[in-house]
Amino acid sequence: MTGTVPVPGTMRAAYIDSVGPADAIRWGELPVPSAGPTDVLVRVEAVAVDPVDTFVRSGAYATPLPLPFVVGRDLVGEVVMAGPGAVGFAAGQRVWCNSLGHAGRQGACAQYAAVAAERLYPAPSDITGEDLVAAAHPAASAWLALLRHGRLRAGETVYVGGGAGNVGGAAVALAASAGARVVATARAEDATAVRDLGAAEVLDYRAPDLGERMRRAAPDGYDVHLDTSGHGVLADSVELLARGGRLVAMVGLGGGTSELPLGRLYTRDASIVGFAISNATTADLAEAAQGVVRLLRGTPWRPRIAGRLPLSMTAQAHRRLEAGEVRGRLILVP
Amino acid sequence: MTGTVPVPGTMRAAYIDSVGPADAIRWGELPVPSAGPTDVLVRVEAVAVDPVDTFVRSGAYATPLPLPFVVGRDLVGEVVMAGPGAVGFAAGQRVWCNSLGHAGRQGACAQYAAVAAERLYPAPSDITGEDLVAAAHPAASAWLALLRHGRLRAGETVYVGGGAGNVGGAAVALAASAGARVVATARAEDATAVRDLGAAEVLDYRAPDLGERMRRAAPDGYDVHLDTSGHGVLADSVELLARGGRLVAMVGLGGGTSELPLGRLYTRDASIVGFAISNATTADLAEAAQGVVRLLRGTPWRPRIAGRLPLSMTAQAHRRLEAGEVRGRLILVP
Repeated sequence: MTGTVPVPGTMRAAYIDSVGPADAIRWGELPVPSAGPTDVLVRVEAVAVDPVDTFVRSGAYATPLPLPFVVGRDLVGEVVMAGPGAVGFAAGQRVWCNSLGHAGRQGACAQYAAVAAERLYPAPSDITGEDLVAAAHPAASAWLALLRHGRLRAGETVYVGGGAGNVGGAAVALAASAGARVVATARAEDATAVRDLGAAEVLDYRAPDLGERMRRAAPDGYDVHLDTSGHGVLADSVELLARGGRLVAMVGLGGGTSELPLGRLYTRDASIVGFAISNATTADLAEAAQGVVRLLRGTPWRPRIAGRLPLSMTAQAHRRLEAGEVRGRLILVP
Repeated sequence: MTGTVPVPGTMRAAYIDSVGPADAIRWGELPVPSAGPTDVLVRVEAVAVDPVDTFVRSGAYATPLPLPFVVGRDLVGEVVMAGPGAVGFAAGQRVWCNSLGHAGRQGACAQYAAVAAERLYPAPSDITGEDLVAAAHPAASAWLALLRHGRLRAGETVYVGGGAGNVGGAAVALAASAGARVVATARAEDATAVRDLGAAEVLDYRAPDLGERMRRAAPDGYDVHLDTSGHGVLADSVELLARGGRLVAMVGLGGGTSELPLGRLYTRDASIVGFAISNATTADLAEAAQGVVRLLRGTPWRPRIAGRLPLSMTAQAHRRLEAGEVRGRLILVP
């Protein structure tokens, strides 16, 4: 290990002893994690709260968790110590990560986190830490959904449901910058903002003839369909797919079943491609991280930040998210 | 054009003047088709009747048709004349094709057919024409479903619903020969035959605890799920997919909708991949054609031939197929 700053033995952390409601999150002392030879010990500067954090905490998304389990997955911070095999990292360096707390790994909502080097990325000096950590989850999700799972190519037509949301906005900007034609839905008052991100057409999602408008906006069908809102009707979306079209499914964890017209799907060689970021490989996440940085540098898209709270109020942040009260990203700071 | 045999001006053909029921098929004289510079004029020796032929004829599968339209897509025959750009073909050569009558092309159920060289394959001398034409559709379908759309890799676990059928049997043999572990369903009396094709386990599709048996046969889930029978319950099939699993959908044209648990699909990065052979590119069809030949050469699988009829009885062949009376392939000969 190389390191210059003394590290205490314990730290403050937001953790659970077993999966359960937001109230199960405790704020207390835990040992500072030990970092292995290819790990980096990071002093956390800011964490962004993801909907996925609440799925992991509640058990809705089943994944192995060490107990007590520190919640959270996205962080920005400073390297305290880098293992000898954590090549390219050194104490004092600013770094970020978007995939910590799940699959046996401890999470981000603490003063310190041990991060495998392959999950950690240098923070560019021209992007604020808050933008980076707030962008991490929605922009990486949009990148993986469109490019990895949706296999988007330049010249294709993309539908983005919920273009004013954080994932949706990132998807609009990303698809437009990738040379695709983007049709998005949004509330009428958000249409200009979504158009500014690169959408060729923005449809009012409350329009009674939305389906007909979607069809007119893409007479040859949509090559990629990404509904970030979960409000779309699957059968209608399948009906609007182009030949060979891909509907990327990434929301609807708590929902029941949807009606799927299989005959309409298969006769046009169309697919429904499921995607949960927790399944992403470290290679995919690293590629997505580069996409996040390019998105912040090369497009007008910025994550919407709903507010800032101290890390000690992680439970409240989860409650507010689950109550549907938060429009944007909640940032937690130690 | 190079050719040695005189070609008449007209020929006998099974054709329709407009889409409709099997009775719409007429048997009569049509001009022998003219072949373009990259086409091959083939004297038809045998045609196999596909379920897809009936979908095209009835209009259930919408595709541009020149009228009068000669039905049928799979043929084996002999080259009469090859255009100067139909490189590699010469008069007298035996050839086969599996993708004629749809998308603006005239079909196979006639004494002569003009076939684009890129859709025509030399017939190997060690395989009978009847085996080849009977295998063409089911084996190419299985190949495209498993390898192109299902992206099957060696070492994966494959479920084949309906392993004793023509497509299902080809899929079992193909998957096993590709290094996959195959679990198939079949009637109890067909279990041995399906096992002989390479299935590791054959489950009785009428077993009341079929779902539980399917689960036990693949505790880590199925990487590729191919239901050729259309009898499976989509939600149950999704439940049994492995992480990253692909359910290839290729049947159910006339059916209604199926219940899809989107949350179960996306949280395991699973996909439903639709596939209709009419959408296959000529490059994919040519690769599948090589797969068909390898399957006939390298595995015990052979297409089941239900019977032979004269080409003049094409209408009856369609009627029998649509009545569900045919178990195997119907071969038509001029």
